[in-house]
Amino acid sequence: MPTLQDVAREAGVSKMTVSNVLNGRRDRVSPATIARVMEVVTRLGYVPNASARSLSARRSNIVALAFPSRDAGGVTPMTNPHDSLFLSEVEAQVTQAGLYLMAHSVNSVESTAHSLRSWNVDGAIFLGTRADEVAALHTAYDAPMVFVDNHGTSPHISNVGIEDRLGGQLAGRRLIEAGHRRIGFVGPRFDEPGVVRERHAGFVQALTEAGLSLRPEHVVHCDAGFDHAVAAARRVLAAPQRPTAVFATADIIAAGLLKGFVRAGCPVPDQMSIIGFDDLEVARHVSPEITTLHQDIPGKARAAVEVLLTQLAHWPAARSERRVLGVSLVERESVAPPPAS
Amino acid sequence: MPTLQDVAREAGVSKMTVSNVLNGRRDRVSPATIARVMEVVTRLGYVPNASARSLSARRSNIVALAFPSRDAGGVTPMTNPHDSLFLSEVEAQVTQAGLYLMAHSVNSVESTAHSLRSWNVDGAIFLGTRADEVAALHTAYDAPMVFVDNHGTSPHISNVGIEDRLGGQLAGRRLIEAGHRRIGFVGPRFDEPGVVRERHAGFVQALTEAGLSLRPEHVVHCDAGFDHAVAAARRVLAAPQRPTAVFATADIIAAGLLKGFVRAGCPVPDQMSIIGFDDLEVARHVSPEITTLHQDIPGKARAAVEVLLTQLAHWPAARSERRVLGVSLVERESVAPPPAS
Repeated sequence: MPTLQDVAREAGVSKMTVSNVLNGRRDRVSPATIARVMEVVTRLGYVPNASARSLSARRSNIVALAFPSRDAGGVTPMTNPHDSLFLSEVEAQVTQAGLYLMAHSVNSVESTAHSLRSWNVDGAIFLGTRADEVAALHTAYDAPMVFVDNHGTSPHISNVGIEDRLGGQLAGRRLIEAGHRRIGFVGPRFDEPGVVRERHAGFVQALTEAGLSLRPEHVVHCDAGFDHAVAAARRVLAAPQRPTAVFATADIIAAGLLKGFVRAGCPVPDQMSIIGFDDLEVARHVSPEITTLHQDIPGKARAAVEVLLTQLAHWPAARSERRVLGVSLVERESVAPPPAS
Repeated sequence: MPTLQDVAREAGVSKMTVSNVLNGRRDRVSPATIARVMEVVTRLGYVPNASARSLSARRSNIVALAFPSRDAGGVTPMTNPHDSLFLSEVEAQVTQAGLYLMAHSVNSVESTAHSLRSWNVDGAIFLGTRADEVAALHTAYDAPMVFVDNHGTSPHISNVGIEDRLGGQLAGRRLIEAGHRRIGFVGPRFDEPGVVRERHAGFVQALTEAGLSLRPEHVVHCDAGFDHAVAAARRVLAAPQRPTAVFATADIIAAGLLKGFVRAGCPVPDQMSIIGFDDLEVARHVSPEITTLHQDIPGKARAAVEVLLTQLAHWPAARSERRVLGVSLVERESVAPPPAS
């Protein structure tokens, strides 16, 4: 059984350095040395006693990814491709940093704070929290936390997100540029600050710039599930002076609308144009393929882990950090000029 | 700060019982008592020191879900909807049992055994291992392990799977019943024992029962990714005496074939019938919707956690256990009689 001493000798560093690397005190060690030590640890099969280490170093080397449990729309957590792609990349990055990932679905702020404290995780990344939950979590739990896609306004929290508002604006502009004047909006309710509210705001801004307005009867609320969206298509078509195009706040909604429109005898894009959001695989599975706003989900995951590792290295003196990733329009097949009326 | 004593009094049990419940010695405690103790623990916000508990009880209360890292097909791990749905249900069940879930992508048997030992996880569920890796893992790591969809033949391992062979057989029979005589097979290579080999074997069996055979030129290999399958459609169509129907070993392949066939001017199901496997959401997203073999993925996840918990309760005296869940054909829109030639 190799010892700490063996690892130190083989890597040509002090035992203290090996200990610093293994116990997460990595800000004192160069990246090259970290890599060398980890290589030796793996090659020799050195097994630090993690539980003992956790007690002594007050570090568990576990970070948690907290995601929402079954939501209002009845969608099973993590089966949303956005979330599973995000998890996948977080896991890869966390493993590469020599840490462990705990996956934890979140019912409530209280039970989450309880779990995180109980397991002494070093820090946590939160997916899908509401803006108002962030403050409650900060009160209940004192450790590095990074939120994702949270549009709360507190300057004290770390957040990684994307340009949701710009995305909505680009969608609106593209449909206007194609000649549409009656454009609908389909997405979940957005009473709270969040990505849907931002995407809606950007979309309305594009209409306003063009001297248009979003008519209340052209707003159809629909949870982010395929079947919800198939059903929502009928409500779009039943609206007075029905729209000739819609902006859907998620690709899964766009895909469901597409099926609903075609079933109702309204071909896409000849009679109805659609723009989605996220650039998930589903946008390319369907025919016609869906024009959408691309966001870099693995990039967002990498940024979240980076921010968390920076926080860990400087905790408790860490400063909060906000990162915003860009979005871009991906042209596919679901946008055409409005039908001649 | 509530103490163990407080929890015991509130739940009306001894401190030893609370300790047994919290330290995973649950085979000595009735389910009703476990539920009551856990309710009180949550309500009072009792925080056992998990790291200390892990040392004393030799239990970490962590179970790992190990899944393959980036595979040969270049598919990002966990973005496969089968895996993410499985993870989601495992997480829910593990949390309900008062345990924690570590998510861990697997590069190699050695690094996996190393990680599991290092973190002293109580046990692990393995998704997507090759049959030959199982023996190596058993040698390298001595703790409860449950494999999923592994078709290795060792009687000493616990496995949860589905009736893959029957699924292939039902697919073959359905296409024959619709009148097809030239039926192709599209799926990943299957040199090793595994689900693809089983599905293929059942499919061939159905053909043989009907006095048909699977021609080598009607077998097209294709990794389980959408774009791979779009490209594979051309190879199916280019085969001599091309088939009038295909069985695809996964819905994502079926969806890609559908797009590839339609692009090449071969409408589905008028000129080509398709049956998929898994009954994932993608089978319903596309048009026509794909006829497929349903498997109960959340049920498989629940069974895997149950088997693991039974192993944990009786370790090291636990006996291995195998469970096989059924499959059923789901009729949709991608099967029709062969075109009149």
